[in-house]
Amino acid sequence: MDRAPNDIEALIAQMARLPGLGPRSARRLVLHLIQRRDQSMRPLLAALDRVSQSAQTCSQCGNISTAPVCAICTDTRRATGEICVVEDVADLWAMERGGVFKGQYHVLGGTLSALDAIGPEDLRIPQLVDRVGNGGVREVILALAATVDGQTTAHYIADALGHTGVKITALAQGVPMGGELDYLDDGTIGAALRARKDF
Amino acid sequence: MDRAPNDIEALIAQMARLPGLGPRSARRLVLHLIQRRDQSMRPLLAALDRVSQSAQTCSQCGNISTAPVCAICTDTRRATGEICVVEDVADLWAMERGGVFKGQYHVLGGTLSALDAIGPEDLRIPQLVDRVGNGGVREVILALAATVDGQTTAHYIADALGHTGVKITALAQGVPMGGELDYLDDGTIGAALRARKDF
Ligand SMILES: [Zn+2]
Ligand SMILES: [Zn+2]
Repeated sequence: MDRAPNDIEALIAQMARLPGLGPRSARRLVLHLIQRRDQSMRPLLAALDRVSQSAQTCSQCGNISTAPVCAICTDTRRATGEICVVEDVADLWAMERGGVFKGQYHVLGGTLSALDAIGPEDLRIPQLVDRVGNGGVREVILALAATVDGQTTAHYIADALGHTGVKITALAQGVPMGGELDYLDDGTIGAALRARKDF
Repeated sequence: MDRAPNDIEALIAQMARLPGLGPRSARRLVLHLIQRRDQSMRPLLAALDRVSQSAQTCSQCGNISTAPVCAICTDTRRATGEICVVEDVADLWAMERGGVFKGQYHVLGGTLSALDAIGPEDLRIPQLVDRVGNGGVREVILALAATVDGQTTAHYIADALGHTGVKITALAQGVPMGGELDYLDDGTIGAALRARKDF
């Protein structure tokens, strides 16, 4: 790589910093792209460029969207009064692949963490409290990881919503201890949702 | 992903087809890029765009370059009369990381393969024969994998260059059986180069 042209070295360095990639896989990827400029490099560039220009965060739920409010929030058939609270967009996508949940979401953007000094105001928890306070919500389903931080966050949200009287449930059976939602198979997520219990 | 916006789904699908990535790692990558648009997405786009416009194949050696002839071929200090023959650009980069070889390269673009019906005319072998025939070459170092196809290719090239009288050597000690060059550590490549033997 010492003698790879500077532009190419810079691209490899960019790629190597992405999650799941390292210098070796980045070199392989960049070579692949250069050697398949028309079939691979140009379509990828065009797709990245479109997403770079269009992607934004849904102002209601925190999902990633190509409009100010996402397709799930604007779908009136999904205004069921159920809000599923997830840690991040990857978890929302995992829930959608499960295909069982028909309501709307609220993406926290993380979990509470004493260690990382992440408090409620760093997440979209105040927005969730406002959203529930505005009415029309029957049930808040806490679909958070079965980790210490995930469960701390679940309890915090249940407390924060206590005064609203809304029903609060949590994914139950099917989420293994220490398990992260995004790693579960789709069937397990569906089972956990159907067996949700009062929190 | 069912409900990810179409542009984002298309980008994930593009990414998932790249070597070493799959749907799950592609989703993670795309989320990472979207959520770090300024720190990650835009610099990656710019770097990809530069490489997409500038990358080309060196007309002399087959290396990837940002000019018609690559930086190694135009570096007169590297016109030592030694040509190192490698399978692909990843192997050239691996040799360069070793930092031992000071001559020039010839990138074949693959190895002969009866199974895949890859013959000499599918590789840059005729160009190598021409290049050696044009004079100024003292030694051709065959730095090919210790695989059946790699060694078949080495023997074919040795035969094809036989009439030129040029010295032909091969990487020796240090390349493990079945080993691919690009997986070796840098020190091993240097040792194999220094211990090269007549072929
Ligand atoms: Zn939304
Ligand atoms: Zn060159």
